[in-house]
Amino acid sequence: MNNAPAETAAETSALEDDHFHDECGVFGIWGNDDASALTALGLHALQHRGQEACGIVAYDGAVFSAHRGMGLVSDNFSSRSIIDTLPGSIAIGHNRYATCGAATLRNIQPIFGDLSFGGFGVAHNGNLTNAYKLREQLVSGGAIFQSTSDTEVIVHLVARSHKKTVNERIVEALPTIEGGYALVAVAEGKLIGVRDPFGVRPLCLGRLGDAYVLASETCAFDIIGASYIRDSEPGEMVTIDALGITTQQVFKEAQSRFCIFEYVYFARPDSHLENRSVYEARKRIGAELAVEAPCPTADLVVPVPDSGVPSAIGYASAAGLPFELGIIRNHYVGRTFIEPTDQIRHLGVKLKHNANADVIRGKSIVLVDDSIVRGTTSRKIVEMLRAAGAREIHMRISCPPTKHPCFYGIDTPTSDELLANRMGVDEIKDYIGVDSLAYVSLDGLYRALNKPGRDGQSPQFCDACLSGDDRCPITDFEGREDRTRRVSAMASGDD
Amino acid sequence: MNNAPAETAAETSALEDDHFHDECGVFGIWGNDDASALTALGLHALQHRGQEACGIVAYDGAVFSAHRGMGLVSDNFSSRSIIDTLPGSIAIGHNRYATCGAATLRNIQPIFGDLSFGGFGVAHNGNLTNAYKLREQLVSGGAIFQSTSDTEVIVHLVARSHKKTVNERIVEALPTIEGGYALVAVAEGKLIGVRDPFGVRPLCLGRLGDAYVLASETCAFDIIGASYIRDSEPGEMVTIDALGITTQQVFKEAQSRFCIFEYVYFARPDSHLENRSVYEARKRIGAELAVEAPCPTADLVVPVPDSGVPSAIGYASAAGLPFELGIIRNHYVGRTFIEPTDQIRHLGVKLKHNANADVIRGKSIVLVDDSIVRGTTSRKIVEMLRAAGAREIHMRISCPPTKHPCFYGIDTPTSDELLANRMGVDEIKDYIGVDSLAYVSLDGLYRALNKPGRDGQSPQFCDACLSGDDRCPITDFEGREDRTRRVSAMASGDD
Amino acid sequence: MNNAPAETAAETSALEDDHFHDECGVFGIWGNDDASALTALGLHALQHRGQEACGIVAYDGAVFSAHRGMGLVSDNFSSRSIIDTLPGSIAIGHNRYATCGAATLRNIQPIFGDLSFGGFGVAHNGNLTNAYKLREQLVSGGAIFQSTSDTEVIVHLVARSHKKTVNERIVEALPTIEGGYALVAVAEGKLIGVRDPFGVRPLCLGRLGDAYVLASETCAFDIIGASYIRDSEPGEMVTIDALGITTQQVFKEAQSRFCIFEYVYFARPDSHLENRSVYEARKRIGAELAVEAPCPTADLVVPVPDSGVPSAIGYASAAGLPFELGIIRNHYVGRTFIEPTDQIRHLGVKLKHNANADVIRGKSIVLVDDSIVRGTTSRKIVEMLRAAGAREIHMRISCPPTKHPCFYGIDTPTSDELLANRMGVDEIKDYIGVDSLAYVSLDGLYRALNKPGRDGQSPQFCDACLSGDDRCPITDFEGREDRTRRVSAMASGDD
Amino acid sequence: MNNAPAETAAETSALEDDHFHDECGVFGIWGNDDASALTALGLHALQHRGQEACGIVAYDGAVFSAHRGMGLVSDNFSSRSIIDTLPGSIAIGHNRYATCGAATLRNIQPIFGDLSFGGFGVAHNGNLTNAYKLREQLVSGGAIFQSTSDTEVIVHLVARSHKKTVNERIVEALPTIEGGYALVAVAEGKLIGVRDPFGVRPLCLGRLGDAYVLASETCAFDIIGASYIRDSEPGEMVTIDALGITTQQVFKEAQSRFCIFEYVYFARPDSHLENRSVYEARKRIGAELAVEAPCPTADLVVPVPDSGVPSAIGYASAAGLPFELGIIRNHYVGRTFIEPTDQIRHLGVKLKHNANADVIRGKSIVLVDDSIVRGTTSRKIVEMLRAAGAREIHMRISCPPTKHPCFYGIDTPTSDELLANRMGVDEIKDYIGVDSLAYVSLDGLYRALNKPGRDGQSPQFCDACLSGDDRCPITDFEGREDRTRRVSAMASGDD
Repeated sequence: MNNAPAETAAETSALEDDHFHDECGVFGIWGNDDASALTALGLHALQHRGQEACGIVAYDGAVFSAHRGMGLVSDNFSSRSIIDTLPGSIAIGHNRYATCGAATLRNIQPIFGDLSFGGFGVAHNGNLTNAYKLREQLVSGGAIFQSTSDTEVIVHLVARSHKKTVNERIVEALPTIEGGYALVAVAEGKLIGVRDPFGVRPLCLGRLGDAYVLASETCAFDIIGASYIRDSEPGEMVTIDALGITTQQVFKEAQSRFCIFEYVYFARPDSHLENRSVYEARKRIGAELAVEAPCPTADLVVPVPDSGVPSAIGYASAAGLPFELGIIRNHYVGRTFIEPTDQIRHLGVKLKHNANADVIRGKSIVLVDDSIVRGTTSRKIVEMLRAAGAREIHMRISCPPTKHPCFYGIDTPTSDELLANRMGVDEIKDYIGVDSLAYVSLDGLYRALNKPGRDGQSPQFCDACLSGDDRCPITDFEGREDRTRRVSAMASGDD
Repeated sequence: MNNAPAETAAETSALEDDHFHDECGVFGIWGNDDASALTALGLHALQHRGQEACGIVAYDGAVFSAHRGMGLVSDNFSSRSIIDTLPGSIAIGHNRYATCGAATLRNIQPIFGDLSFGGFGVAHNGNLTNAYKLREQLVSGGAIFQSTSDTEVIVHLVARSHKKTVNERIVEALPTIEGGYALVAVAEGKLIGVRDPFGVRPLCLGRLGDAYVLASETCAFDIIGASYIRDSEPGEMVTIDALGITTQQVFKEAQSRFCIFEYVYFARPDSHLENRSVYEARKRIGAELAVEAPCPTADLVVPVPDSGVPSAIGYASAAGLPFELGIIRNHYVGRTFIEPTDQIRHLGVKLKHNANADVIRGKSIVLVDDSIVRGTTSRKIVEMLRAAGAREIHMRISCPPTKHPCFYGIDTPTSDELLANRMGVDEIKDYIGVDSLAYVSLDGLYRALNKPGRDGQSPQFCDACLSGDDRCPITDFEGREDRTRRVSAMASGDD
Repeated sequence: MNNAPAETAAETSALEDDHFHDECGVFGIWGNDDASALTALGLHALQHRGQEACGIVAYDGAVFSAHRGMGLVSDNFSSRSIIDTLPGSIAIGHNRYATCGAATLRNIQPIFGDLSFGGFGVAHNGNLTNAYKLREQLVSGGAIFQSTSDTEVIVHLVARSHKKTVNERIVEALPTIEGGYALVAVAEGKLIGVRDPFGVRPLCLGRLGDAYVLASETCAFDIIGASYIRDSEPGEMVTIDALGITTQQVFKEAQSRFCIFEYVYFARPDSHLENRSVYEARKRIGAELAVEAPCPTADLVVPVPDSGVPSAIGYASAAGLPFELGIIRNHYVGRTFIEPTDQIRHLGVKLKHNANADVIRGKSIVLVDDSIVRGTTSRKIVEMLRAAGAREIHMRISCPPTKHPCFYGIDTPTSDELLANRMGVDEIKDYIGVDSLAYVSLDGLYRALNKPGRDGQSPQFCDACLSGDDRCPITDFEGREDRTRRVSAMASGDD
Repeated sequence: MNNAPAETAAETSALEDDHFHDECGVFGIWGNDDASALTALGLHALQHRGQEACGIVAYDGAVFSAHRGMGLVSDNFSSRSIIDTLPGSIAIGHNRYATCGAATLRNIQPIFGDLSFGGFGVAHNGNLTNAYKLREQLVSGGAIFQSTSDTEVIVHLVARSHKKTVNERIVEALPTIEGGYALVAVAEGKLIGVRDPFGVRPLCLGRLGDAYVLASETCAFDIIGASYIRDSEPGEMVTIDALGITTQQVFKEAQSRFCIFEYVYFARPDSHLENRSVYEARKRIGAELAVEAPCPTADLVVPVPDSGVPSAIGYASAAGLPFELGIIRNHYVGRTFIEPTDQIRHLGVKLKHNANADVIRGKSIVLVDDSIVRGTTSRKIVEMLRAAGAREIHMRISCPPTKHPCFYGIDTPTSDELLANRMGVDEIKDYIGVDSLAYVSLDGLYRALNKPGRDGQSPQFCDACLSGDDRCPITDFEGREDRTRRVSAMASGDD
């Protein structure tokens, strides 16, 4: 059942793909008879936000149906016979990346409960920073948790509210929750979407004919031909039912501090966030980097595929240098592969990348990537380019150093593992083995996002992973050294 | 996941195997380092009590572990690698036959909850007759049910109790529950067993070295070499922990009315129940039947294999007739098989049985079976024996007519489907196509169990399926025509 | 694919089930539109002859189709969607027990070849005793073997014949083959059956309406309602096509020496062989044993289930003693199960059998079984009965000591492993741990089969495993100590 | 087993990915103790040449081992436990794309035979154009074919040769074979590679320490750190054994006519072929196209990802236009996905591609792709770009019109399906819906490959798919309208 335990998958992923990882994608639709199929397509477009597991809950006016599974959307929802078990015109779905909660079937979202007012399903992207404390309180009151997911805390809070309607219950429940999140929920006849009061995680509203759609990113609208209406506001609860769209501000204080890393790496380049094109934003970061850290003697600009491509195009264009595919990516990389013996263990990174030797032999290259987390991959790529004959390698990173873990829904290593937390830029340069290394500045990053620069008093984004400036409460983690929380006495064989 | 939905399996089973079906087997052990392996062996010995699914929960002094799966014990627990995920010296296990609750992974017992006092796992054999009402009350109070199993009601009642210890909570919870049940539970350091106040379902206590064992039948002791101590008493809670065995009567009024059908069909012939050998009891029923319904002109006695064998031996011995295997059973019968086309659909019963033509050709035979439920199988067997040349067929049934459904944990068809509810003995004789038909009398059955006969005022057994005399409350079913209860708004794709 | 390699399965089987094992069952049908479904049913009835793998080849007048798989017939052919891939009115099928040829998909019969005259499929039960030598000759001539099965030798001989018709080619090919076999073959429009010139392995001819059927045993006729016509003769080739049945004697010298062990153990008791009822034959062996080795002080007769039942009934009846089920078999025994730790390893045999303690406690019992091969199971059963309180155990075996390996299609251990090859009866008695031990004599066995006794000059049966009298040539094994032959340089991962 | 039958996969592929498809990749290694693991890695690097199935045969000095499976290399060879079943220092491997031979396990290469001189395994990339005729001759001579693959013809020819050594037999066998192929073979102690006399399909020779390597492309050397030695010559047989490398010209007349489409589309851009960088060649084709078909009013150049990227970079650079990712590809596209209902069936192409609307809105774009086969994908992409707001779309194709099917190992549609066979450029322009359309000329393509232009008398490449000029014999297909050949009377359920 659980062939890819969370830890191992994360580890493999860390070795092969040295990035922060988004923790989830969510999707919801109201008012289309093929709601589950459209949800599967939407989740497919959001697959980059989570590949470990996925699930859909649908409602057909009488009955709620669910299907969940480990693996990709196309592994679990590609057959019509599965979609047919999920009838109805309202559906929500979730892509999961391994974060809190073990990698078991029980933990796959959406979470569903049969509550006193009827069925209630929830999927969320993000992380609750007081889930552990709330869970303890709920268990003391007789609540029985079936999963170790913090999403289940929300369902129990809604179940225990004495308010009458599901919306009133949500309004009562949410202010007790801390953290960064965007959630979609289904109840009898309703699709509901809520963002945390800082709007850390994204949630967009769209339309497809008479139907309404909620999704983490607009690329999920494009795949089904839906049109973008607007982003949901921080702290806003959007309710879609037979009466149309109703909106309500759930929190007394709400203020936008959107996750800046969505622009740097997470979001798909063809998505819009806050009315910005992600692709154009990345090109501008690359251009900003060309200004801040020029490299006039270089022969060409080479991206680390695929995440470094837009900023490399931006850099090359601003610097007047040729843009070349100096590294070729194998499109058939699966999650795991044999690392056969010590003799050939060092081959690791080549499973995914190969140097395009003719392009780089004897050349001085600007190598553009979006971030350096542990540095393992960068080091291997540089080694590979040297072996293929690169004369000089000048690395440019389209993000300031990632020095701090994130508590708001991003999978980051512990502080100890973050290279920039342990080393200065010069040490990293030596560790990676490049001739020069530069990161875009935090102000430069803000400028690329059309802000005059970061305002220390009131930053316009959540940049805690870069600045260490945690503006949202992190109750469960105060005084802790890592992000791990023990949430259950239950260890499970496979279910 | 759920390849054999409950309804279909029951239907198939009804066609191929026209019997009442026991609904579960339970097993628990305290104090052996290989607790899970011994539990798997115990469940294997109890496999006849439920073949749809099975599960084990173990406790190793710190952590609870669980594994559950659809199918047989040998399908799910035959590899050491699975057993090794279930460490500890305390374990409970469960074999499930499809009854209430859909055939999904979520419904497989043991049910586990992470409660405020620690982990708590429960497995039970039986049926709660007010589970629906209790569930409604609990959901109104904010409880979230993950399964549709009535076992989960028990866990929620224990979770909501304000008492301090798990035993006090069970004592508070159980009197609100109605029905016939035997349950085993595991909490931190404890193995607990409870029977309902009428002791309808069986539960035995045994010992293996320093370890203690609880099981539905003694054959589960034999397989691991444990010795039998005694049956648990009606209404008794047995607690085994570091202090040894503690016993407590949970109910104000408790009175033995053990399920008489365990003797007729359910229990394995090599088990002991209430100090009676099941095999010897069945032989005595056969002998009683030979006295009540003799067949002096017959040539031989033939059992319907395998359930009719002991009573056929008893009948043959009492009647002085030869005992012969006139029907041979195929040992490789799986759950399902092609019923290829209309042309050969009538072959059904032969997948399992074949006439031993040389033995029966031209003979007058006494055909002994334990019960006739729908009559479908009996009719096909008789037709097969006629085709093989039997001259006369005198059918003898080692149980009175089964006229009433059971509400205490046995899977019975609706009243309409029960042949004896619709027809008199003569009509059944004609329907089945035999030359004569006789059932043992209810008094005869009591005599075979060493009672002078049934006392209408105070029957010593629960014989409601035979007499219609429901002595235990059946709140959920009052005024209902069938045993079906809708317990959830949730329909599930596969999880 | 190959989770149960041949060696391991044989070993497990040897431990749990100490018997000689038949090596295959074959089935063929001509002239029914649902030929594959009927073949699946026929194979299901023959499942006792081989449980490792099974396959069907069908012909629809234009195209041959095949499906094969590891496991039981019901595992591989229970869905209509599989049967529908095997259209046509002619089909042959095969059940395989692990013998020569590794347990891979490639080795599963029927073997099929696309020959110059058209498609040709063969399934056979038995063993060729010069297959290795023939294979070497064929490979030298450029033949390419895809399997390690000796059946493929037959296909190559037919392919290389220069005769025109498939029948002429078979007639040319067969005299070069030595061994004991019964084969069924399908070619365009034809079903063909052949037995070796000694008729060692069984093959019966039946009819179902306008269709004709060939099968290893008559129980395969019963399951589909076909009627028995006659046994195929030693050395006879039966051809069924649009012209009806044609018969031809392929060998110059043919003489019946049918495998006596089919009567002792292999065949199902409800089958007929050579016009004898197997069940009645076994009862007569039991009666013969009661005369040769009486046990007047015993209280009851107990069979080792299920193979010892008919002879125990025969013994009990002849001796005037009660027949009782003193050992109960668990019907849910799979192939393997955890043998968890040394602590509980000795539980082995109880997975399958349990003593019925009330029946045997304090009693002197006659324990009847059909054979003792290695003695491992017998020893454990006796130990179990002693532990359950048996006072005296007198073992009676319905077959003479099995001292010699078989080369004609039966899976037997090496001589060293055969207990009767190493020990005399008294030693075996002590090893098994019984109070007395007796085997039926070889003459007694012949008498039970209605012969005056074994005639040393011209035995009416092949009894080489009992007498050591190999009357058929065994070219490949001359001077060898065991039955193992290396037939290929190819070891296969899984295909 | 066979979840993706050849026809369906081809169809899906045609709809989603409108390209000619390469038919296989081959790999072989001699002299490394981890030969199978290195072969798996090499096949992984060659995955783009065939995704339907893969296999490896290894030789350890005594025994040959094989493993094959449907699906990707990482699906079948990612676990050490599989690799461990393939011991030895010599191994060959194969990636298969669906071409001739049904998609069954039997047809997966390498094909292995246990011949009179020992084991012999072969894997080949290409297509034999007289395989059908040869097969008929071989079957007449008694050969039994197990697969429908034309590779098996080679094995039979080698088996039937009367020469002594495997090399002599190959030399005898190959001249009877027609077609384009590159094959690798393993025999006892030897690795052998052969190319057809025209060198249509690629085969390169490399070195890794003391080991030698053969592969379809050099990217398979890079992944294991092997160095490139040279391309194998047309008609050359390379033998690697304990004596080192031996080379022999097998054919009297050999002349290079390498497949020009390897440069256009098949090969990975980081591979070298005939000492040319594929990436640089594609850039030069793009530049040639910018000269032949300029588009001075365009705003930007957009590639169809990923195959159009290098030529788009070349075009943009030559034309002085910006290069932009105007189409974003979803990296998680599997083989199949629900096409849920008619309502959303038109979404097809978006599963793989999405328009990057901000980049193209209101712009005049040059859209660069490598080929138009059926035109279905191009049409959908253009429609998608129009919907996203593109003002003008000028399509440029880096290959002349593909008017003819290929008989030398490339999977092409029938002539009828080839758009350029039915329509002129103007019609195609209208069908695709672009504002202008131009293909590079055949002479332009030759120039980009550093030739002065195509010489009609003696073309330096095989360009039959573009020119219709079939210079190699195509016996099986003379007078036929399509590439389909019936090679077997056997249709197979799943094996």
